[in-house]
This record gives sequence, structure tokens and C-alpha cells, in this order.
Amino acid sequence: MKRMIKNLGRVFEPKSVAIVGASATPNKIGNVLVRNFLDTKFPGAVYPVNPKYPELFGLKCYAKVSDIPGKVDCVIVATPAETVPGVMRDCADKKVGGVVILSGGFEEVNRNDLAQKLREIAEASNIPVVGPNCLGVFNPYTKVDSIFLPMYKLERPKAGSIAFVTQSGAVGSTVVDLMAYYGVGLSKFISYGNGTILDESDYLEYLMQDEKTKTIILYLEGVKDGRKLLAAMKKVNKVKPIIALKAGKGAGGQAAARSHTGNIAGSYLAYNAAFKQAKVAEADGIDEVFDFVKIFNQPKPKGNRMGVITNGGGMGVLTADYIESEGLALAQFSEETKKELAEILPAYGTVANPLDLVADAGVEAYEKAIGVMMKDPNIDGLIVIILTQTPPIDERIIHVLTKVLDAQTKPIATISVGGTYTEVYRKILESKGVPSYSSPRAAVKAMERLVVYSKYCRQLGKK
Amino acid sequence: MKRMIKNLGRVFEPKSVAIVGASATPNKIGNVLVRNFLDTKFPGAVYPVNPKYPELFGLKCYAKVSDIPGKVDCVIVATPAETVPGVMRDCADKKVGGVVILSGGFEEVNRNDLAQKLREIAEASNIPVVGPNCLGVFNPYTKVDSIFLPMYKLERPKAGSIAFVTQSGAVGSTVVDLMAYYGVGLSKFISYGNGTILDESDYLEYLMQDEKTKTIILYLEGVKDGRKLLAAMKKVNKVKPIIALKAGKGAGGQAAARSHTGNIAGSYLAYNAAFKQAKVAEADGIDEVFDFVKIFNQPKPKGNRMGVITNGGGMGVLTADYIESEGLALAQFSEETKKELAEILPAYGTVANPLDLVADAGVEAYEKAIGVMMKDPNIDGLIVIILTQTPPIDERIIHVLTKVLDAQTKPIATISVGGTYTEVYRKILESKGVPSYSSPRAAVKAMERLVVYSKYCRQLGKK
Repeated sequence: MKRMIKNLGRVFEPKSVAIVGASATPNKIGNVLVRNFLDTKFPGAVYPVNPKYPELFGLKCYAKVSDIPGKVDCVIVATPAETVPGVMRDCADKKVGGVVILSGGFEEVNRNDLAQKLREIAEASNIPVVGPNCLGVFNPYTKVDSIFLPMYKLERPKAGSIAFVTQSGAVGSTVVDLMAYYGVGLSKFISYGNGTILDESDYLEYLMQDEKTKTIILYLEGVKDGRKLLAAMKKVNKVKPIIALKAGKGAGGQAAARSHTGNIAGSYLAYNAAFKQAKVAEADGIDEVFDFVKIFNQPKPKGNRMGVITNGGGMGVLTADYIESEGLALAQFSEETKKELAEILPAYGTVANPLDLVADAGVEAYEKAIGVMMKDPNIDGLIVIILTQTPPIDERIIHVLTKVLDAQTKPIATISVGGTYTEVYRKILESKGVPSYSSPRAAVKAMERLVVYSKYCRQLGKK
Repeated sequence: MKRMIKNLGRVFEPKSVAIVGASATPNKIGNVLVRNFLDTKFPGAVYPVNPKYPELFGLKCYAKVSDIPGKVDCVIVATPAETVPGVMRDCADKKVGGVVILSGGFEEVNRNDLAQKLREIAEASNIPVVGPNCLGVFNPYTKVDSIFLPMYKLERPKAGSIAFVTQSGAVGSTVVDLMAYYGVGLSKFISYGNGTILDESDYLEYLMQDEKTKTIILYLEGVKDGRKLLAAMKKVNKVKPIIALKAGKGAGGQAAARSHTGNIAGSYLAYNAAFKQAKVAEADGIDEVFDFVKIFNQPKPKGNRMGVITNGGGMGVLTADYIESEGLALAQFSEETKKELAEILPAYGTVANPLDLVADAGVEAYEKAIGVMMKDPNIDGLIVIILTQTPPIDERIIHVLTKVLDAQTKPIATISVGGTYTEVYRKILESKGVPSYSSPRAAVKAMERLVVYSKYCRQLGKK
């Protein structure tokens, strides 16, 4: 298995890619796949494989993988399940780097016989296999991309430091789309479906060693080897934070999970306990996955005491509520901080936490208040609410918030809620690495996860 | 008080508006206000009031309200707190229809003396007063609009059936912005701030009788008269559903609420109990307010049994989980439904709930599956997940979903998660009246609120 994990390098950084089931019919998976490789200007060789065509998109088309001259690193398979063991055997003969099987029709429809054949060939040849029944892989650094969804419909994120291991292609792809929308960078996307050969734990091990990856998202439905997963999470989460989302919690969800990837979802309580034991941050829903992962690019807070800045009183009240209900604390400002903040406020303002700069506040007030709170030793992190709709807030706020990142010693989360105008701000902030949330609850819950993980790292003796 | 509530009609449907504190200085409240009335082509008379100017924006400017010739329905005040009792007295002399006081500087900064003066004048003259310390009112039907935020920053929603009563201007305005963004219609916006004269209960009474309003959002921090609120909620919620959000739950939030509108937030448990007693749907956060209110345009379900359709397995699993954890149930399909659904699915598909149409599913499969589920008596409501990113889903899905509304006997909630492409779909669906959610949890929680309210209506003997 170790060798297989190591061999994944050829899947994610291939110099050549073969697409088995390449097709001339628009919207067919094998068509979208080849088109995506050409559209994205994949720098290596692309080999369409399908005995039906002599050529496709102007490229020579091969009858089988072993007909391709020269080395083949990554093979993407999109042919019917019955044909896949034959393709695998051919790949083993050709000694390819790895195989990504998108095709469904294995354990999830009780064809364990077919799955077993794949397993035998993969193990005998030490070829890593992603899938079957999945969206496969995407690496924005090398442009290898087996996501068979058109790029205009599912945007691809820029290269970054967040990896995503997902059992469900649908769940994975929606989060990838969100990352692209907000300009958040991805390191590797791994949709592994049935996980017949390599499973979630193997991918965690792979990503632990991946230089581009700093944070890992893990979406699970059912797992074959729970002990292995717990061990992998414990090991990997010490090095890189994991955000986990478990689906298939109730009876109905478990039945749906079984027919989805052929894995038994098992007792949710066991997963919940495993996440707690491994100190993995558990998300409740797709939105929280995205909310949580963004904040892990921030410095680790030394405690749970938050300073809150707002230009809208009600938003401060809501945020204070979540800070208390989620186990964080409202910081008690130092005397010096109080003095300095009083100078920023208008005459009728009150120094308190949340600090209400009121709707008249301009960008300078934010800049000063953030500066003051950044140096107060009684404050461990900042939550900054910016209602962009007020007249004095203009685009300089983006400059102020991104400048904070330069000499930041404490994490910052920002909150802005609104329509078109506000969304433009949020997208710019996100793309610059400033976590931006569209609700107080989302920001506070994310900050809480960072606080918990930071405490764990301090216990491990890590900074 | 009854007469004052009745007089609110002149505030929301004014033929003439006076703006006290009108200003020539860009970005000042009194400047944005006048500009907004002109930009929005308010059909009535607009009277700027400020002794400093002979005219403003080409309009004659008056020294005081009583100098205005003819009737004045709605007076909007944006001058310093100290001056407001004088303005009120002048308004009483002039016998104006109502006054909206945006100015802060009353109870929230312990100037109860000033608040008391306002109260005395209002009660003696029976003039309804909105505020002080608020964003005031917005009625998209008549274009009266005292929200002093520029329209390019805070979009105004189209005319519709949702009313919003909010203690916090900031919270209110962000939701209004979201409504505009997604094309959801508003009937009345009432930001009442300190609620010195008319309070939240009075506005509920007013909206109960308002013909344009079908659903009411209520955002509260602190309330002066809890018994009055409970009675009002009980009475109004029987006629029109109320979605409530309470802020100021913990000690920190309560302190922030106190300095925000001068009201005591009080024990959250009491509010929670009151919401339950009045069968009011309580939201946890701004996002949920918006999530919940959208679904109340749907037919009332007869029970809690949901049919789920998806083209992404994992999204179905997540949705099934929430259905179970939120107290809804996965419907057991009738035998006829099972037969009819089997014909829609590909050979390798399985009839189950959630119904996974798989990623190959086209618009026709959705149309058929929705049709079949709409007529199954074992199904009370539909949750339809559409991953718009798959190749076969195109814009005809919008036609299918909006056509459902024509002869709909059961509520429908849709879920689509993604970036730019998906957001376009979601906005169109929302603007056509199809509730669209960006996460399974949001959709299921909203549906649960509708199920609970529908049950309450059945108990009341209402359809």
C-alpha cells in the first residue's frame, strides 16, 4: 500500500494522460474529459483511447492503452463497468503510473465480483487506483483534471493549499465550485467514490506528505476500515488540520449511502467519537466545510478571547451571542486599549466589546481599531463586521484588511452580509486570503474550530 | 394606540414626504435621503427641510415642517437628538400623518428625558412615530424609503408579500439586500430602533391588517412589554406566519443590546418559550431568517413525509440526514410511484428515497419524477436537489420547476450549491417564487418550519 500511495505522484503530476472511453459525442463523459484537457492547456501528452475512432479532436486515438507508444502516467477510465477489469489488465501490462476509474457499476450495485477483480490486478501490479464510481482527481498545479463537468458550469479553483478528499463527487464538486467562486486556492481534489483499492486513509497519508497541501477537507459516507481511519486521522491531523464532514448519520441517510458508494455508513456516534479523539474539526454541512477551512490560513490564536468590531449594532449583538454559545469569550480590553479606542469613537460612542463604531464609521476607524486590538495581550483573535452598505465604507477597507495580513499575530475573521455590492467585496477579500463570512454564526463557528485546533497544537508543543 | 397604528397608513402610503435635516453634503444622511427619493421617482411631493438652504436638488427647501404649504403625510427626521422634540412639536402643530425619527441619541445613551418628551407629544397628538435610532421605513409599492444607505450599495427589493419588522437597522438592511439580490419581494420594511412610541407589537398588529403582507419577519433584541408581545404574536401568527430572530441571548449580547437600542434584552428562555407558545418559527441567525421566510409562499403540507430527488448521491445522503435529525420523515413511496419511478431511472438505478437520478439525468427525468411524487398521497412535500453542474442539466430545468407552481398541491424546496453558474440559476428560481437553497440543511430546516406551521393551521381549522 505504501508503494501505491507513493505512486500516486504519477497520477497527480503526470507527464502523459490516457483517456479510455474518449468520445466524439458532445456532453458524454469521455467527450467532456478530452475537451477539458485541451481547454485547460494541459502541458503533457493527451492520448484518447477508443477503438471506434482513428483520431479525436485532432489527436491520434488509440484502441487500447498498451498501443500508446512511450510512458503513460495517468489513465482515466470512463467505460462501462464490465470492461474495466480488461482495461486494468491492459494498464498493468503497460506499467502505467496509476488509474482513475470514473465508471460506476461496482459495489454500489452489488457487483463485488468486478470490484474484486480490480483489487487483484491493482495489488499484483502496485498500480494505485482512484475510484471507481467517482469524479477522480484535479490538481490545479499540473492541470490534471478528470472532473467530467464542463468548466463553464463548474469553475476550477486556482492553485492553493487546501486539499479535498471526498467520497461523493457531487459534494466535492460543489465545494470546489464555491472555492473557485470566492477565489480560494486548492492543492488537490480527490473524489474516490467506492474506494475499492485506495481508501480515505491512504489519501490522508498521501496528502500529509504533499508539499502543496496545508489543510485537508474530508467528506465521508461509509468507511471499510474504521480503525485505519482513526489512526490515519490522528497521525495526519497533528501535521495538517483536517476538517471532516460525515454523511449517512440516520437510517435513511445510511441506506442512501449504501446504494451510493457501496460502503456501510455505520454508527455516526463512532465517527463523532473518532473525530473528537483525533481532534479533527467536524463540520455540519457543506457550507460549514467551506466556512471552516478558510480560517486555517490564519495565525493560531493563543486563547479564545475575541475582540469584535462592527459598524452595525445588531450584527454585534448577534456575534456576541454566538461567541458565548460556541465556547469563545468576549475579550476584556486592557486599560490602554480602552483609552485608545475611546479616541476613535464619536462623542456619543461607548467603548465596549463588541466595539460599535456606528454607521458613521469610515475606513480609518476600522484601521485604527484593528491596530489597537492587534496589540492588546488580552485579545486572542479579531472578528470584524463590515457592513459595506454604509456610505463611508469604500474600497479602501480591502486595503486595510489585506494589510493586516502582513504583520498579523492574531487571526482575523470578517463578516459582511448583503447582495451584489457586498458579494464583490467578499470575493476580493477571500481571494486575498482574508476569511470573509456571510453570517455571524459562520464566522464564530469557524473561529472556534481554529481556537480548538490551536490549543491542540500547543499541547503537542507545536507553534 | 389603535388610532396611531391606523395612522401608520399615512407613513407607508404618503402623498407627501418632508425630510428634516436635508443636506447638500454628499454621503450625509440628509443628503442620501433626498437623493434616494428623487432617484426612485417617488410619485408624491418631496419637501426638504433645513433652514440653511433656500433650495436643494432643485426643490424648494423649508425652514421648518409647518412652513410647508398643504398636507404633509410622512416626516423623516435626521437632525441631532436635542432638536427632535422641537421638530415633533412643529409636526404636531402641522398635524402631519406620521414621523420617522432616524436620529440616535435617546434611550441608548441614557437620554430617557428626550425620549419621554417625544412620547408625550406623540400621545397628545396621536401621531405615530417610528424610531428613534433606526433606518425607518421602506415600502416598495409606494416608494417611501427612509433607508439612508445608497441604493447602489443596498439594493431595494421588488414589491412582494414579505414584511420585515426589525429593531436593528443593520440586521434588517442586510436581509433586505439579500432579498433584492435573489429577487424576493418585500411588502413593508420597518426598522423601529428604540421603539419609544410604537413598538414591535404595534407593528405586528399593523401588518396583520396590511393587505400586501402575507409573511412577517421579526428581529428583536430587547422588548419593553413582554406580555404585550406574546399576545400580539399569538394573535397575528394565527393569521400570518411570523419568523422571529432574537438577539442578545447571552450576557455579552445583552450588554451590547442595551447600548444599541436602550432596551433590556431579558432572559432568552422567556423569549424562546413565548415563540413556542405562539407557534412562531424561530430562526437561528440572519441566514435562517431568509431561508425560512422564502418557503412560506408554498402550499401547506399535510404532514412531514418528504420525497427527495437528486442527481448527486452524496447530496441525497446529506439531505436524508437532515430530514431525520430535524423531525421530518423520508416518505415511503406507494407501489404505483415505485413502478413509475423505475421507468424513469436508468437500468442500473435503484428506486429509493432519496431518489438518485444519477449525474446522467436530464431535465425530463426531473419533470417526470416531480410529477410522479406530486400525486403520491404518501408524500407531503418535495425536496429537489439539482446540481446544475452536470452536462445534461440546462435552462429548461427552470421552466420545469416554475411550471410546478401552477398546479402545485404540495410544497417544493430546491437545493443547488455552486459558483457563478449555479448562482444564476438560483436567482432566477427565487425570483420566480421557487424556494432555492444553497445547502441541504437550510432547505430541510425551512421545510420543517413550514410543516410545523401548517400543522398549527390545521389545528386552528384553517387550510
